[in-house]
Amino acid sequence: MSKGEATRQRIIEAAAGLFNQHGYEGSSLSELMEATGLEKGGIYRHFASKEELAAEAFDYAWSAATQARMHDLDKAENSVDQLKQFIANFVERRPAVPGGCPLFNTAVEVDDSDSALRNRALKALHGWRDLLQTIIETGLRRREIRRGTDAKGLATLIISSLEGALMMSRLERRRDPLLSIQKHLDDFLETGVRLRR
Amino acid sequence: MSKGEATRQRIIEAAAGLFNQHGYEGSSLSELMEATGLEKGGIYRHFASKEELAAEAFDYAWSAATQARMHDLDKAENSVDQLKQFIANFVERRPAVPGGCPLFNTAVEVDDSDSALRNRALKALHGWRDLLQTIIETGLRRREIRRGTDAKGLATLIISSLEGALMMSRLERRRDPLLSIQKHLDDFLETGVRLRR
Repeated sequence: MSKGEATRQRIIEAAAGLFNQHGYEGSSLSELMEATGLEKGGIYRHFASKEELAAEAFDYAWSAATQARMHDLDKAENSVDQLKQFIANFVERRPAVPGGCPLFNTAVEVDDSDSALRNRALKALHGWRDLLQTIIETGLRRREIRRGTDAKGLATLIISSLEGALMMSRLERRRDPLLSIQKHLDDFLETGVRLRR
Repeated sequence: MSKGEATRQRIIEAAAGLFNQHGYEGSSLSELMEATGLEKGGIYRHFASKEELAAEAFDYAWSAATQARMHDLDKAENSVDQLKQFIANFVERRPAVPGGCPLFNTAVEVDDSDSALRNRALKALHGWRDLLQTIIETGLRRREIRRGTDAKGLATLIISSLEGALMMSRLERRRDPLLSIQKHLDDFLETGVRLRR
């Protein structure tokens, strides 16, 4: 990595933490300068605009979140156990970028706009849902999951309830909402989804 | 209402729409001036600070959201039907203040801070959960709901999954995630919560 590339990467990482905690709109140039230790010219030599930096910072934060959530997923052989591992990772593992889930933080900011950042958030959401749907569809094929299970609906349930609970937990600064949702999802996966033979 | 009170109220309503769509941090003074049709002095004659205005605007937006969600709730006699009515209202009725749920929009902005606005959001979350918990506890007493149902856990499930699905629906600009969660919650209320006699 050249010195320029290393600086660019350092800016992205610092911006990811800043934007994820204080919002893209809520982060000022002076905060960005403080977080990176660079002047305005030193930052914007590497990016055409704040929006371009925000898009790169989002991708970095989302990749860190995905990495935490995918931990040991391949070690579970059964698809239902993979879903439970995913849920446990979401509840227990905090990603490297602080400030909560980059997808929902960004979604709240961009849902009323038509921006490059909204497209990134949308792509992240679809990628996440596709991943869970693929696990569920594999489980259906392998007869680990009950016939008639709505793969997209179940993926939507897992994403929406975990994200909603994360927001409640962050606002309350208590883990209870996340633990409560994990229990509901685990119970539902065992009693309503897993095919017992 | 005096002329001063009417102006104050008009500022609160305009700020509520602006903050709920673009965020408290993301809304500039010039946008606030445009939305209210007033100069800076005309706005801040009525409020000590932007934070005081934001707190009042949050209460106004939250009250509008609560009003939409409580629609016809008293018409359902059975507690399980009240929960289903609440869920249907959340899915079908858009509150008067545009921009999505004021609680989650605000929570994303304030969860990393210690502000008056965070306290308002926390109070709103607790009030909402208490409302659902009271319905569930009444249902337990009246033997409409299965013994052993965790009232706080069920309230948390309803809030988190609806809020998560609203965010997904707003980002995708499709109703599917909300409709999918309504179906899951309604099924769960019928098969896992309602006591049949």
